[in-house]
Amino acid sequence: MNLVEHTLQLTGRLAPRENWSADRCSIRSALRVAGNSTALLILREAFYGTTRFDDFAERVGISEPVAAARLRDLVEHGLLERQSYRDPGQRTRMGYQLTDKGAELFPVLVALMQWGDRWLAPAGPPVVLRHHDCGEPVHAELRCADGHQPPVEELDLATGPGARARADG
Amino acid sequence: MNLVEHTLQLTGRLAPRENWSADRCSIRSALRVAGNSTALLILREAFYGTTRFDDFAERVGISEPVAAARLRDLVEHGLLERQSYRDPGQRTRMGYQLTDKGAELFPVLVALMQWGDRWLAPAGPPVVLRHHDCGEPVHAELRCADGHQPPVEELDLATGPGARARADG
Repeated sequence: MNLVEHTLQLTGRLAPRENWSADRCSIRSALRVAGNSTALLILREAFYGTTRFDDFAERVGISEPVAAARLRDLVEHGLLERQSYRDPGQRTRMGYQLTDKGAELFPVLVALMQWGDRWLAPAGPPVVLRHHDCGEPVHAELRCADGHQPPVEELDLATGPGARARADG
Repeated sequence: MNLVEHTLQLTGRLAPRENWSADRCSIRSALRVAGNSTALLILREAFYGTTRFDDFAERVGISEPVAAARLRDLVEHGLLERQSYRDPGQRTRMGYQLTDKGAELFPVLVALMQWGDRWLAPAGPPVVLRHHDCGEPVHAELRCADGHQPPVEELDLATGPGARARADG
C-alpha cells in the first residue's frame, strides 16, 4: 500500500517534513483573514452584486449582528470597502464593495464551488459560470508558467524568497 | 462611483439577485465539509506527506483532542482514509491518507496560498510550487473551456442542471 499518493515532493531544505515549521505559511495567513465560512459566503454575495447590509444578512442567511461583525472584519482586512450610494429619490446610504484584494479571492470561491459541484451536488451544479464572450464554462485549474497542468504528484515544493533564514544555514 | 465593479453578470432567472435563494449553493456545501481552517491545514499537511496522528497535531499546531476531532470529521466526510502501515521493525500503526475526494481540494489550497503570498507575505512567498518536469512555478487560475482567462467582470452566472425547479416555471 502506498501511503504517499496525492502528495507533493518536498525539495531542498523542505525535505524531510519534520525539518521545518510552516508557521509563516501563506495558506494559514489567508485562512486567518478569509477562513471563516460566513465571510466567504458574504464575499460570494459581493461577487453576485450584493451591496447592502440587509441583503448580505438575508442572502447569506445570518443574523444582523453576525453580518455586522463579519462585514466589519472584511472591511478592516481590506477585502471590502464601504461606499456611499443614493438611489433616485432616496437618502444616501452605505454599501459594501469588493476591493482588488477581496476580488482576488474569487479563484478560491470558484475552486470551492467546483469541488462542491463534483462531490456534494448529486442533482448537478445549481449554478454555472460561463465566459460571457464565448459562452464556455469556466473552471479553476492549476497550471505552470509553461502551460502544463501537472497533477499533485508532479509538483515540487521548494523554499521561496520569504522562507525564514536559518542560523545554521 | 461604480458599486458593481468586480461582480459577475447574473443571467436568466438568476437576475435580479433578490429573485432566488442560494440555499443549494455548492460553495456553501463545500464550506460545510471543508470550511474549517484547521481541517484545511490538516489537508495541507496531508499534501506535504504527513500521515501520522502525532505529526498532524504538531505540524498544524493543534492539541491532540482537536486533531482527533478534525481527523475524524475528514474521514467521515471521505476526504481522508485511515490506512495501516508498518515501519521496519515496528508494530502496525494507522495513518491517514488523502482520498481522491480530498485530493481534489488541492486547487482551493493553492488559490488560498497564492492569495496569501500576494497580500499577506511582505517578505515574499515562504514556499513555492513548481512543476517537477519543467521547473516552472505553478498557480491556480480561472479558465474557460475555450482557453480564455476572463476577469470576474466577464463572467456570467447561469442556472445549472441542479437548480431547483420552481412551481411557477
